[in-house]
Amino acid sequence: MKIILDLDTGIDDALALAYAVAHPDLELIGVTGTYGNVPVALGVRNSLALLELLDAEDVPVFIGPTRPGFNVAPISAFIHGRNGLGEVLLPPPRRKAYEDAVGFLIRSVREHGEDLVIVPTGPSTSIAAAMREDPDFARNARIVMMGGALTVPGNVTPYAEANVFQDPQATDYVFRHARDLTMVGLDVTLRTLLTREHTKQWRGTRTGRIYADIVDYYIHAYKTTSPHLGGCGLHDPLAVAVAADPSLVTCLDLNLRCEDNGRTIGDPERLDNPTARVAVAVDDARFVDDLMSKLGSLYTSTSAC
Amino acid sequence: MKIILDLDTGIDDALALAYAVAHPDLELIGVTGTYGNVPVALGVRNSLALLELLDAEDVPVFIGPTRPGFNVAPISAFIHGRNGLGEVLLPPPRRKAYEDAVGFLIRSVREHGEDLVIVPTGPSTSIAAAMREDPDFARNARIVMMGGALTVPGNVTPYAEANVFQDPQATDYVFRHARDLTMVGLDVTLRTLLTREHTKQWRGTRTGRIYADIVDYYIHAYKTTSPHLGGCGLHDPLAVAVAADPSLVTCLDLNLRCEDNGRTIGDPERLDNPTARVAVAVDDARFVDDLMSKLGSLYTSTSAC
Repeated sequence: MKIILDLDTGIDDALALAYAVAHPDLELIGVTGTYGNVPVALGVRNSLALLELLDAEDVPVFIGPTRPGFNVAPISAFIHGRNGLGEVLLPPPRRKAYEDAVGFLIRSVREHGEDLVIVPTGPSTSIAAAMREDPDFARNARIVMMGGALTVPGNVTPYAEANVFQDPQATDYVFRHARDLTMVGLDVTLRTLLTREHTKQWRGTRTGRIYADIVDYYIHAYKTTSPHLGGCGLHDPLAVAVAADPSLVTCLDLNLRCEDNGRTIGDPERLDNPTARVAVAVDDARFVDDLMSKLGSLYTSTSAC
Repeated sequence: MKIILDLDTGIDDALALAYAVAHPDLELIGVTGTYGNVPVALGVRNSLALLELLDAEDVPVFIGPTRPGFNVAPISAFIHGRNGLGEVLLPPPRRKAYEDAVGFLIRSVREHGEDLVIVPTGPSTSIAAAMREDPDFARNARIVMMGGALTVPGNVTPYAEANVFQDPQATDYVFRHARDLTMVGLDVTLRTLLTREHTKQWRGTRTGRIYADIVDYYIHAYKTTSPHLGGCGLHDPLAVAVAADPSLVTCLDLNLRCEDNGRTIGDPERLDNPTARVAVAVDDARFVDDLMSKLGSLYTSTSAC
């Protein structure tokens, strides 16, 4: 299965990236950069630097559109660090990113069709732009998005999850036009947790230590923002895992709408013929075991010191 | 299975009552009266009159508490008629109701335990009162409530379903203390529809004609309030049906909270060990067929003219 990640790289995005690189069933054909946890340029830089760290410099990175007036929210800087990677410093990337993430998304769906899954882990801006530009993209793209909250409250307001809150109109457009969409939202991602007990297992190699340092920052931030969880939410990696193995989650078939305040909710005027699935339960133990196993192999095999 | 209905009788409550009387697997041991579609006194009167019409005068009716300052909402009067029964006039009931619905609920759970299911189809006021008065009630009552909305918007505000909107604090209390609760909300009840094609099949007997006239009023109101549905929602009867046959719905295990604005949503601080189930999908064809079959028999057997 070919996969494109649309990332606002961010700590859980960094984990999603490592997991996708490590996953034997996934071929990461590109990363598109969006805004959210960080601005587009910083997220793109982080993706390039992490791919280098992961010995995956063959994966191209593309620059996506931003939103006029976007600024990083203080809570995002608190959770991900100002540099998006928990203040862990990586060497400047050797490679440059390409322009036109939206064009890359459209071309890729045209070329690979059903063999490709797109996993957006930030706002829906780039995906909606691709749908608006090319109706074939909307008809043919398989999308597993991290975002939204159906059966639990939001995390930036009582109604809105952070990704969709950035551009609710784009998410609504995606909900109304996608023909094959899975929403992996807070309903399940807050049930999949990582702790320092996990990250300390990575510290045998340089790559593993860097990742452990990055993720420990995130775990520490969660202690302040969500002390009841007892760990950090594995939002973005879970979406990648569901793209590779849908059986990890139980889904509810439901046509969604995204309201202007960022609430993602069933559309009572489109109750029939659902084209979307919402993940509402997750085999969290199986997912965390799988994540730890794949990342463990990766951190052993790359950049050992 | 013994059953108690806690009704604000109302048109769909009237259907729930007929369905419970008709159901061979259910023994209706009492009706408790609450407020909502109508004030308590009028709902109690309607229940008594309908039980008489249904040849079920052995079923006792109890008067429950109201809420200070309660007034029937204009939308309720529009949907159910000012008398709660679509302006259809029934003879004054021969019987009187008993006092102390809350005491009856508590005694019944004490006496029947697991053999009893309670189906509240109005605000949670009486059920919360019973739980506050007797912790054993909260521990032992099996409750299948019609109310709330998890995966679709509310019907009186974008966030609130009408029943829980009346007394959100009571619903929240029930959510936090019930040990066996099924929520049958708008998620499923708006998918179970009745039309005039159905009600015209009842017109062979006096009881059937009266019920058809009552329900046609409701169907007509739905044409104004929810024209996209193409029928009227079978809110309260569906809850009774689920009490008798849980396999009619697919449930999500989830601990709920009810916010002060009436939103019913998963409680992110109690994600583990769910004691509640939310119906999120329904076999609507099987339910409507079953309802029509049981009501059809009832309307043929009672008060033929």
